[in-house]
Amino acid sequence: MSRQEATEKILHAKSTRNISFEEIARAVGRNIVWTTAALLGQAAMNKEEAEKVTACLGLPASVAEALQTIPTKGSLDTTVPVDPLIYRFHEITQVYGTTIKAIIHEMFGDGIMSAIDFTMEIERVPDPHGDRVKVTYNGKFLPYKKW
Amino acid sequence: MSRQEATEKILHAKSTRNISFEEIARAVGRNIVWTTAALLGQAAMNKEEAEKVTACLGLPASVAEALQTIPTKGSLDTTVPVDPLIYRFHEITQVYGTTIKAIIHEMFGDGIMSAIDFTMEIERVPDPHGDRVKVTYNGKFLPYKKW
Amino acid sequence: MSRQEATEKILHAKSTRNISFEEIARAVGRNIVWTTAALLGQAAMNKEEAEKVTACLGLPASVAEALQTIPTKGSLDTTVPVDPLIYRFHEITQVYGTTIKAIIHEMFGDGIMSAIDFTMEIERVPDPHGDRVKVTYNGKFLPYKKW
Amino acid sequence: MSRQEATEKILHAKSTRNISFEEIARAVGRNIVWTTAALLGQAAMNKEEAEKVTACLGLPASVAEALQTIPTKGSLDTTVPVDPLIYRFHEITQVYGTTIKAIIHEMFGDGIMSAIDFTMEIERVPDPHGDRVKVTYNGKFLPYKKW
Amino acid sequence: MSRQEATEKILHAKSTRNISFEEIARAVGRNIVWTTAALLGQAAMNKEEAEKVTACLGLPASVAEALQTIPTKGSLDTTVPVDPLIYRFHEITQVYGTTIKAIIHEMFGDGIMSAIDFTMEIERVPDPHGDRVKVTYNGKFLPYKKW
Amino acid sequence: MSRQEATEKILHAKSTRNISFEEIARAVGRNIVWTTAALLGQAAMNKEEAEKVTACLGLPASVAEALQTIPTKGSLDTTVPVDPLIYRFHEITQVYGTTIKAIIHEMFGDGIMSAIDFTMEIERVPDPHGDRVKVTYNGKFLPYKKW
Amino acid sequence: MSRQEATEKILHAKSTRNISFEEIARAVGRNIVWTTAALLGQAAMNKEEAEKVTACLGLPASVAEALQTIPTKGSLDTTVPVDPLIYRFHEITQVYGTTIKAIIHEMFGDGIMSAIDFTMEIERVPDPHGDRVKVTYNGKFLPYKKW
Amino acid sequence: MSRQEATEKILHAKSTRNISFEEIARAVGRNIVWTTAALLGQAAMNKEEAEKVTACLGLPASVAEALQTIPTKGSLDTTVPVDPLIYRFHEITQVYGTTIKAIIHEMFGDGIMSAIDFTMEIERVPDPHGDRVKVTYNGKFLPYKKW
Amino acid sequence: MSRQEATEKILHAKSTRNISFEEIARAVGRNIVWTTAALLGQAAMNKEEAEKVTACLGLPASVAEALQTIPTKGSLDTTVPVDPLIYRFHEITQVYGTTIKAIIHEMFGDGIMSAIDFTMEIERVPDPHGDRVKVTYNGKFLPYKKW
Amino acid sequence: MSRQEATEKILHAKSTRNISFEEIARAVGRNIVWTTAALLGQAAMNKEEAEKVTACLGLPASVAEALQTIPTKGSLDTTVPVDPLIYRFHEITQVYGTTIKAIIHEMFGDGIMSAIDFTMEIERVPDPHGDRVKVTYNGKFLPYKKW
Repeated sequence: MSRQEATEKILHAKSTRNISFEEIARAVGRNIVWTTAALLGQAAMNKEEAEKVTACLGLPASVAEALQTIPTKGSLDTTVPVDPLIYRFHEITQVYGTTIKAIIHEMFGDGIMSAIDFTMEIERVPDPHGDRVKVTYNGKFLPYKKW
Repeated sequence: MSRQEATEKILHAKSTRNISFEEIARAVGRNIVWTTAALLGQAAMNKEEAEKVTACLGLPASVAEALQTIPTKGSLDTTVPVDPLIYRFHEITQVYGTTIKAIIHEMFGDGIMSAIDFTMEIERVPDPHGDRVKVTYNGKFLPYKKW
Repeated sequence: MSRQEATEKILHAKSTRNISFEEIARAVGRNIVWTTAALLGQAAMNKEEAEKVTACLGLPASVAEALQTIPTKGSLDTTVPVDPLIYRFHEITQVYGTTIKAIIHEMFGDGIMSAIDFTMEIERVPDPHGDRVKVTYNGKFLPYKKW
Repeated sequence: MSRQEATEKILHAKSTRNISFEEIARAVGRNIVWTTAALLGQAAMNKEEAEKVTACLGLPASVAEALQTIPTKGSLDTTVPVDPLIYRFHEITQVYGTTIKAIIHEMFGDGIMSAIDFTMEIERVPDPHGDRVKVTYNGKFLPYKKW
Repeated sequence: MSRQEATEKILHAKSTRNISFEEIARAVGRNIVWTTAALLGQAAMNKEEAEKVTACLGLPASVAEALQTIPTKGSLDTTVPVDPLIYRFHEITQVYGTTIKAIIHEMFGDGIMSAIDFTMEIERVPDPHGDRVKVTYNGKFLPYKKW
Repeated sequence: MSRQEATEKILHAKSTRNISFEEIARAVGRNIVWTTAALLGQAAMNKEEAEKVTACLGLPASVAEALQTIPTKGSLDTTVPVDPLIYRFHEITQVYGTTIKAIIHEMFGDGIMSAIDFTMEIERVPDPHGDRVKVTYNGKFLPYKKW
Repeated sequence: MSRQEATEKILHAKSTRNISFEEIARAVGRNIVWTTAALLGQAAMNKEEAEKVTACLGLPASVAEALQTIPTKGSLDTTVPVDPLIYRFHEITQVYGTTIKAIIHEMFGDGIMSAIDFTMEIERVPDPHGDRVKVTYNGKFLPYKKW
Repeated sequence: MSRQEATEKILHAKSTRNISFEEIARAVGRNIVWTTAALLGQAAMNKEEAEKVTACLGLPASVAEALQTIPTKGSLDTTVPVDPLIYRFHEITQVYGTTIKAIIHEMFGDGIMSAIDFTMEIERVPDPHGDRVKVTYNGKFLPYKKW
Repeated sequence: MSRQEATEKILHAKSTRNISFEEIARAVGRNIVWTTAALLGQAAMNKEEAEKVTACLGLPASVAEALQTIPTKGSLDTTVPVDPLIYRFHEITQVYGTTIKAIIHEMFGDGIMSAIDFTMEIERVPDPHGDRVKVTYNGKFLPYKKW
Repeated sequence: MSRQEATEKILHAKSTRNISFEEIARAVGRNIVWTTAALLGQAAMNKEEAEKVTACLGLPASVAEALQTIPTKGSLDTTVPVDPLIYRFHEITQVYGTTIKAIIHEMFGDGIMSAIDFTMEIERVPDPHGDRVKVTYNGKFLPYKKW
């Protein structure tokens, strides 16, 4: 079973059983962001995690196997995302990209924020003027090596 | 004076006087991310803020005027950023874009995180395995309007 | 059922039963533009709205369910639209984009017209020299936040 | 004098003299949208209109001549606009393009809304929840010719 | 039946029955260019025209219905055509585009040649040095509106 | 003198002396389309033609020399033209490209219309409903060689 | 049968019967390059040629019919070829394109080498340092027409 | 002196002194194609060759030095060439690319024609129906290495 | 059987039988990199090698035949790879491309490193600070030919 | 002084003084690859390293300062490199990208080879059949983090 077929089966079962990503994440014992990324084909689960998913959604073993394969990553169909919600993240990189680079260099020196040794949190922050989405990127600073 | 010329003069004076973005931000009385974005041509200052910048960097009034014009935003030269530090933010959108969309929809319903009613923080988080870069996006949730 | 399959079933039933978007919109109790956008996979209906659509078109419950899922938005196959009717809207952005930016900034200051807290109207305006298409965009002004 | 040099001189004089597009439009006797488009190099003025601009801004006759030449139109640097304000108009075409096409065809038959026999209005609509931007497109319907 | 399926059925029947576009156009009572464009999914026929096509090609009523729907126009798979015959028309626009613009502006003032209120003729012109293809574009001049 | 500098000098002198392309073409003794194309850097004149241009516009011999060099052709800045007048020609290729191919093949067999052994005429056709632009392409049919 | 299906059937039969392009070309009585191009969907055969192909490969009449239709030409999936063998030809155009232009203009004047009245030969040239591929392009010079 | 400046000086001197590429090639003692490529910045000369060029064109030693530097190769401004003469070579790759691949593989096995151990000849072939351009590519076959 | 179907069958069997690329390479008697490239459709095996693969994976003869055909090479779906692991190799070319060119030219003169007479090794290098990936490219230097 | 001006001054002085990258690297006390990358604007030197460069090349202090700023990285002008030497590295990624991914995943699990904690060596390997270029990439394996 391909990774993509597994994703389709998972989303179908999730919708039929009316289970949230939150609930699956709790069953798996992982953060909702990482769990959702794995379910959408962007991360690999271990055997135990994958079987908790299929147990929770009533799916066959072949889905659990697919969830353990290392996926070809990249979730967008186009270079610049078209969906407005996802585009806003592209816009932030477009508008604030040089700002982020200038400040990280001032704080850390020459290097990058890792997108591999990296975690992300998404939270809902209540606000009387309208609730807010808070997204936190947390990546290890990797200094450029000299040789 | 064009916005771009003002940015060049600012970066030159900042380098000559050896002043950090942190220090300029403190002088302006604003967060370092917003201040740096304004200095790099991605946000408009008011008169008072702009004059604090030129005072602090020893620059003429024409620079302060330029800082008050509303800029044409977008800081990258290419659609997909080439610099490795900035590319990692593009990669995060590429890999986690659909995950972010799925979770925000589950938490909030149909809508987006605003990139306008939006703040960003960049912090250095000490860590014995190597310090970490923490970037926080905080945007108002905007629900799609029906009519 | 995927959102795209639902759209195809809806358009087929609409054509077979010879019902206009106008009539469906009236059945749903919403504006024709919003209703058509939802039918074409660009907005999410609530349960009541979706069931009015399937009642009116004689479609199964699975279509109503699909209409309630939040779609991945973006209706064009290409970055620049090829169909002449849709291209004219791209051309207006190309030719008048900087004009719109200059005037909104003069009227409101630094910010944008929301495309989320947004409504659109399309009307036929009788005119002895040839009737006219009138399209009205109405979006909340969102000022850039400072922090 | 090239059209682009004329635009730069006009924007400089406008800024120095602190005159709004609104005021120039009143001096010219035309709508603010059309006038701004002409000043930004997207429409051609006649002799009288052009001289009113230069009178009002204290600019030489060569600017008035440039304003009378027919420009090569297109105001954006990139195919997809990068500036957030202008991008929202692209997003509207992306999300609502097929909706607009479906409704215009239902109302008028096969044809397009002209972007040439076309006017645009931009207004500020007061609103207790935040003022709104109202943009009205008004273009002649052009039916496809059969032959 | 989709527009594309109708096109395929038409081309198949045309080939099997060995009927030329010329003959179908005569049956329909329209110019060969417009008729071919309609058969290839770029124009909408009325009921009478569509039924003449299906009568002439022995096709079912569903094809006639498809021919009456307003198509999403655009016949090329790529932005720049790859087929040499079609590419030559792109090359003419590339090489002579600014020439055409300069001359139309000199002849008519600011405006465009309509591609909607437009007809095209294709003829074979006998020539002792090799016959020639003559293609005539005939579009209404549309002057830019001032407002 | 580069071809581009020559074009700029020619357009400047033409504007200052208020001479039309029509008049220059008459002076050169060639069609207005070909003459304009040569002046805009898309064709090479012979010595006699080039000197008639410089005589008529009061330009130095270096311009006449430039007009005799074979130019690197291609008059558009972008792959898809942005200016609305020129875009309409691209749109015609987009919408009618497969129609043109089908008809030329039916009339002539496998081959192309030459864009080299090619002439173009542009005319103003008076019409009570609004004058029309008539553009005629006339290219030698070139059959594909078999070997 | 579409042109592409015919190509697939031909390649399958060629592989099964273990026949070379060389042998098919000899059976058809044409050069191997032209014959292969026709088999790969880039040229149209006449009835006799097409039937020799199907006789030689044991294919049905529908394949012979497909080989007689005029194909939509263009054999690459991408603008810049990705396969290393084909890329080298793109690289030659990239590196030597302006050289070829300069020399042809010096030898012939303003015009092009036809890619229609054109033949190509591919030969193996024995060489003690490693055999060489010799590819010969032979196209009629087409001078630009003046008018 | 940059490679590009050297090319400009060479083309200017060549035009002023009215010397052909043929004559320079003879002076250098190399083929006209290679010599022209080197003059246009696509190959590196040795000291002796470079000094023959500057002697023949009356240029300073700095040009000879520039001709000896190894250039960054690639002569086209765009991915797909726009100039019709150069485009025809792109078209040949587009139309015959898979044919060339199929035949070279049949003749030689898996590998490529080198574009480095490579020579090109351009000749004028007299022909009563119009002279022909003959371009010969001659590249070493490089078999893929197994390991 | 197409090359792509063969790849799918191979990966499926490899997964089912739980055999590593390392083990298949040992069975074939070739390096793991070359073997994997061949299995993924980027190199052609001889009969003996192909049959060892199918023996080892329990696959039919048609797979062995497919492995002997010369593939259309190119393993990425997009010009710039999206998967983070593969992107890092693109980034290295982006950041160090001019460095590599400068050093190879200094070491060897004008020429290239062959990607055809080329081998690659991938090794795991133990390191107390985290194991390292070592990738070695080894390509014949090919000097540019003069003629 | 901008990073790009510093690079130009360095390359000019290096050429005038006839010093190799090898010699500069020895003076700096770093590997030739890293040193060249820094000189070409892709890495930041410390004060001591930068001053050794300017001492060795006879350049002013402003160059040494520029060499200490953190550059915006990315050395190519185009997405796909056009220069044949650099293109071969792109081709290797194109052809072997999925192979590299498959093998690294088999050896290490889900993660990437770092391009930051990374070193590169370039060597000349004597070979009787023609010397070879050996390029070694050595990057830390970074496993994907779960959270």
